[in-house]
Amino acid sequence: MLKQYRAVIHASELLTGEGIRAKSGRHVVEADLGRISDGAIVYSVRMSDGIEVPDQVVWVGATGALPAEYRSIPTRDLEGKRAVIPGLIDCHTHLVFAGNRADEFALRCGGATYEEIALMGGGINSSVRATRAASIEELEALACERLREAWSFGVRALEIKSGYGLSLEAELKVLEVIPRLRKKFPQMTLTATFLGAHAFPPDQSREDYLQDIIERMLPEVARRGLADTCDVFIDAGYYTVEEGRKILTAAKALGLKTKVHADELANTESSTLAAELGCLSADHLLKISDAGIAALAKSETVAVCLPATAFYLKAPHAPARKLLDAGARVALSTDFNPGTSMTLNLPLVLTMGALYLGMSRAELLASVTYTAARALGLEARKGSLVAGMDADFTVLPFSTFEETYYRFGWAPPHD
Amino acid sequence: MLKQYRAVIHASELLTGEGIRAKSGRHVVEADLGRISDGAIVYSVRMSDGIEVPDQVVWVGATGALPAEYRSIPTRDLEGKRAVIPGLIDCHTHLVFAGNRADEFALRCGGATYEEIALMGGGINSSVRATRAASIEELEALACERLREAWSFGVRALEIKSGYGLSLEAELKVLEVIPRLRKKFPQMTLTATFLGAHAFPPDQSREDYLQDIIERMLPEVARRGLADTCDVFIDAGYYTVEEGRKILTAAKALGLKTKVHADELANTESSTLAAELGCLSADHLLKISDAGIAALAKSETVAVCLPATAFYLKAPHAPARKLLDAGARVALSTDFNPGTSMTLNLPLVLTMGALYLGMSRAELLASVTYTAARALGLEARKGSLVAGMDADFTVLPFSTFEETYYRFGWAPPHD
Repeated sequence: MLKQYRAVIHASELLTGEGIRAKSGRHVVEADLGRISDGAIVYSVRMSDGIEVPDQVVWVGATGALPAEYRSIPTRDLEGKRAVIPGLIDCHTHLVFAGNRADEFALRCGGATYEEIALMGGGINSSVRATRAASIEELEALACERLREAWSFGVRALEIKSGYGLSLEAELKVLEVIPRLRKKFPQMTLTATFLGAHAFPPDQSREDYLQDIIERMLPEVARRGLADTCDVFIDAGYYTVEEGRKILTAAKALGLKTKVHADELANTESSTLAAELGCLSADHLLKISDAGIAALAKSETVAVCLPATAFYLKAPHAPARKLLDAGARVALSTDFNPGTSMTLNLPLVLTMGALYLGMSRAELLASVTYTAARALGLEARKGSLVAGMDADFTVLPFSTFEETYYRFGWAPPHD
Repeated sequence: MLKQYRAVIHASELLTGEGIRAKSGRHVVEADLGRISDGAIVYSVRMSDGIEVPDQVVWVGATGALPAEYRSIPTRDLEGKRAVIPGLIDCHTHLVFAGNRADEFALRCGGATYEEIALMGGGINSSVRATRAASIEELEALACERLREAWSFGVRALEIKSGYGLSLEAELKVLEVIPRLRKKFPQMTLTATFLGAHAFPPDQSREDYLQDIIERMLPEVARRGLADTCDVFIDAGYYTVEEGRKILTAAKALGLKTKVHADELANTESSTLAAELGCLSADHLLKISDAGIAALAKSETVAVCLPATAFYLKAPHAPARKLLDAGARVALSTDFNPGTSMTLNLPLVLTMGALYLGMSRAELLASVTYTAARALGLEARKGSLVAGMDADFTVLPFSTFEETYYRFGWAPPHD
């Protein structure tokens, strides 16, 4: 079959992010946005499960410079009203779970304490109970709704963590949802992260579960190719640095990439561990120390900040400015989860990044495109609009990128 | 023509807010929600400019108790999946303006100071320039887009302030947009507030403009029925309490209702003035004193809190909890405006109310229904789902009211 091409022309502005890539995401500035006024993009398409999906970027430039050979291909004209940016990447989500914790949130807002809510059967255990009880079809249906919403906000790639199963069987069930989602959403890239070490299960001893993760769960997940990455929640009341080191080392030995939920509730120097182990990312970082900042800055490990979670927890934000100034790469993500961040609105997270993390326009674009791609190990193919790379792009409902975060809580158009 | 009826049945829950109304919005608790499980509502409809719009509530109750006479009317079945609440009311917006301040927001986030931005032609004066330059048709088109978005979030009544004209001609032009919007959105209730005293115009002396407001603008606005309410921005750097008193007293003499932008940037005891003058509401209240709280609590004046603005300004929130505990009525609103709150997402404001203002479920429902209606003088007909009142209701995309604020930044379905 001959290659099929499509074009989008007359974008009010097109941001390629080429300079961000050239600097591998460190110390990015305005000029790195790769801004093209009245921009156009040509891309090839392929068929996947009967759906036409963008394949590769073929050409990017000013509409006026569109090569003659692409002037008669099927074209979408944005009439100078809408901007085009690299497809947004949400690099930290807990997308697959069942149950509903709205009632406990209302109780919390009405004055109930966490302890009272836990006594009533609430908290993470309520999500674990519901997720274990749900069928794979129910989990898939819930996740599909959520993916449609993420897509409407411009998200084109998204990481999904397990972690509400907390048993071999339930964790595998959650991870098995992801290939089903990939079939339904061939236009999105979904990465799978095993987070069996999200908490401790209510029905097993700590030692037993740790042994299970290392000796049964990780090998089975790796053998079946159900995840490409392993994550551990290292924090006060959760996994210790030493437990985390054991799990992540075992994961690496199986060929998995690694991530850490680091320094969120307390400083445990888990960011330093992430840097030392060469993890893709260290995430949360509300309580990161200056030593942790220095360790991330000189490592290849991306610092993933999750300001919607801080907003929800009413906690001080992660020191993104210090991280950036030290030379670290900072990605932003929703942390979508039922306990501390029930949102898929990545543009709203950008607003928080602008206001509360002190990030510039170039840093904000990098944080949800190129740098987020790095946090998933996808930067070779995604995160910038450069010929030859994956044609993941987002047509914004506004004429400039900054309107996506200057406005906030906006309703996405359905197109 | 015979009266036409419609029904909505099998709402997962229907909140009438009847108890909130019975208490006139003070000290409301859970039982005041008027929760009906598997609820139904019957309402009459009327035709307005060719559009069928809900008219009056005819009956509310459990679906199983639906009177026989309403069992064959056109019915929407929510299948137990969606909740119904009184239509949301956004009681403080600056909906009509032209221009775009996204670029200045990006500069601000990139480190530019307000002074630098003002020197570059930014700030409120940029909105005034653009609004003066825009035709009424342009202003109408912009406002229509915004109303569609507000509607998608469940808003059924909305207040619109002038204030980006700052001259007789431009203020009238802005207010003249509102009757045009009413024709296009007969299913919404739009109230008009004259806020000529929003700032001082760049091209007129303070004394001259004050005289203009009182002697030319207010009489003309009242004569032409272009606004039913007058508002003044009383604050450090804006209007003084004495100037505000003069304007509001003149407005009252012309039969207008009154409101005050009070105690936002500095404490000026303008909340106390609002209570003393019997204003419909005192809005913002970030810097309200204990005396101001006491004054509002014993008055009929609604305390309107605008947490999205505090979020945007990174300012401490208004003391809503203290106001509520003192017996004041608290409404919440978006404060939609291009300088400090570029959002129409009233549900997101509820999330902020729950998390940052410590408001309970009943207080949150009241704040955007009954109490918001009071802030607009509409409480006799709106804000509760009670037979005989206006059939303004919202079908939520979730099965419970609390999901609208437990989740945040959600994308509204288009229906």
